Amino acid sequence: MSSQVRILASALGVALAGGLAAAAISHAAEKPAPALAYTADGKLVAPQNYRTWVYLSTGVDMAYLEGPPPSQHTFDSVFVDPASYAAFQKTGTWPDKTVMVLEVRKGQARGSINKAGVFQTDRVGVEYHVKDVARFKTDGWAFFPASGAPLPQDSACNKCHEQHGAVDTTFVQFYPTLLPKAQEMKTMSAAYLAEEAAAK
Amino acid sequence: MSSQVRILASALGVALAGGLAAAAISHAAEKPAPALAYTADGKLVAPQNYRTWVYLSTGVDMAYLEGPPPSQHTFDSVFVDPASYAAFQKTGTWPDKTVMVLEVRKGQARGSINKAGVFQTDRVGVEYHVKDVARFKTDGWAFFPASGAPLPQDSACNKCHEQHGAVDTTFVQFYPTLLPKAQEMKTMSAAYLAEEAAAK
Repeated sequence: MSSQVRILASALGVALAGGLAAAAISHAAEKPAPALAYTADGKLVAPQNYRTWVYLSTGVDMAYLEGPPPSQHTFDSVFVDPASYAAFQKTGTWPDKTVMVLEVRKGQARGSINKAGVFQTDRVGVEYHVKDVARFKTDGWAFFPASGAPLPQDSACNKCHEQHGAVDTTFVQFYPTLLPKAQEMKTMSAAYLAEEAAAK
Repeated sequence: MSSQVRILASALGVALAGGLAAAAISHAAEKPAPALAYTADGKLVAPQNYRTWVYLSTGVDMAYLEGPPPSQHTFDSVFVDPASYAAFQKTGTWPDKTVMVLEVRKGQARGSINKAGVFQTDRVGVEYHVKDVARFKTDGWAFFPASGAPLPQDSACNKCHEQHGAVDTTFVQFYPTLLPKAQEMKTMSAAYLAEEAAAK
């Protein structure tokens, strides 16, 4: 994280030296920093404030493959930048520059006065799914691990999301406040609709 | 819901007729509507936009009493108005006029490509916990069901939160992004700290 911040500072330094100082300062005064930004070497600048973004949903111990139950409960929660959420509410799909954050936390069964079920504790992982049509040519989207370069465009994540994501390669079928909007706006992918029809 | 809106419109009509029109319009232009508002007969005006507020955490099938496992999975998620979240980040406790929303959703195990674990589907309930020191004399807080009057100040909910809430009658022990701040600012209740010490 700190190395990414240093890289960003370096990149900003280059831009400012290039005579963009006045424009950058004016822009900063007008609106907050964009959700989507990269380091000079193409890594994602990890959004520091995603916990104040819009929450989409949480699953517990979800798995897309059959297997034994996990020894440790895990919660997956998804957040999206507010501007992209607002755009989805109007159009039923994602605008360019959408940033989605998957946060992974441990689950704990007993603690304080809790006697059953599971609640969230420590963060154990974070991943990003971003839409940048000019940069990611396959379907406009890329997955970034917590740090480092994006996954290859033909990664298992990309392929599964392309094949099964309800809207624009994203799992809107698991986001209960977005699914009705996608149904209303008829923005669900043909592959997803065929899959759902076959399952009935 | 629509009856609450009608009641609010009626209450606003009274205020405007009372000569507050100019002040109200000026105020509206300056900032968004406050999170906390009541109908003329003391019910809470249900916040319509809480899903864009700040998310605190989600538990699944949580219970504070022993009992058999539930036949239907249930997720509880908690949201708080952004201004109160920002205040908590500075002070480690809640300001007056805090509004917390508990949203209850069904959990589903199988669906789309999911093979294990549980994801969220339909909303089946919503409750509110609000801080209004001038109005609620016992500890400053009240619980509101989805519609209707607040629970009595000596309700089981109030008593349990007073006795076991880590910070200011709220279950910050289950909100992993707030707990470290409360620890840093030393805002946890004496009762909670004693309870945790006794459990070790």
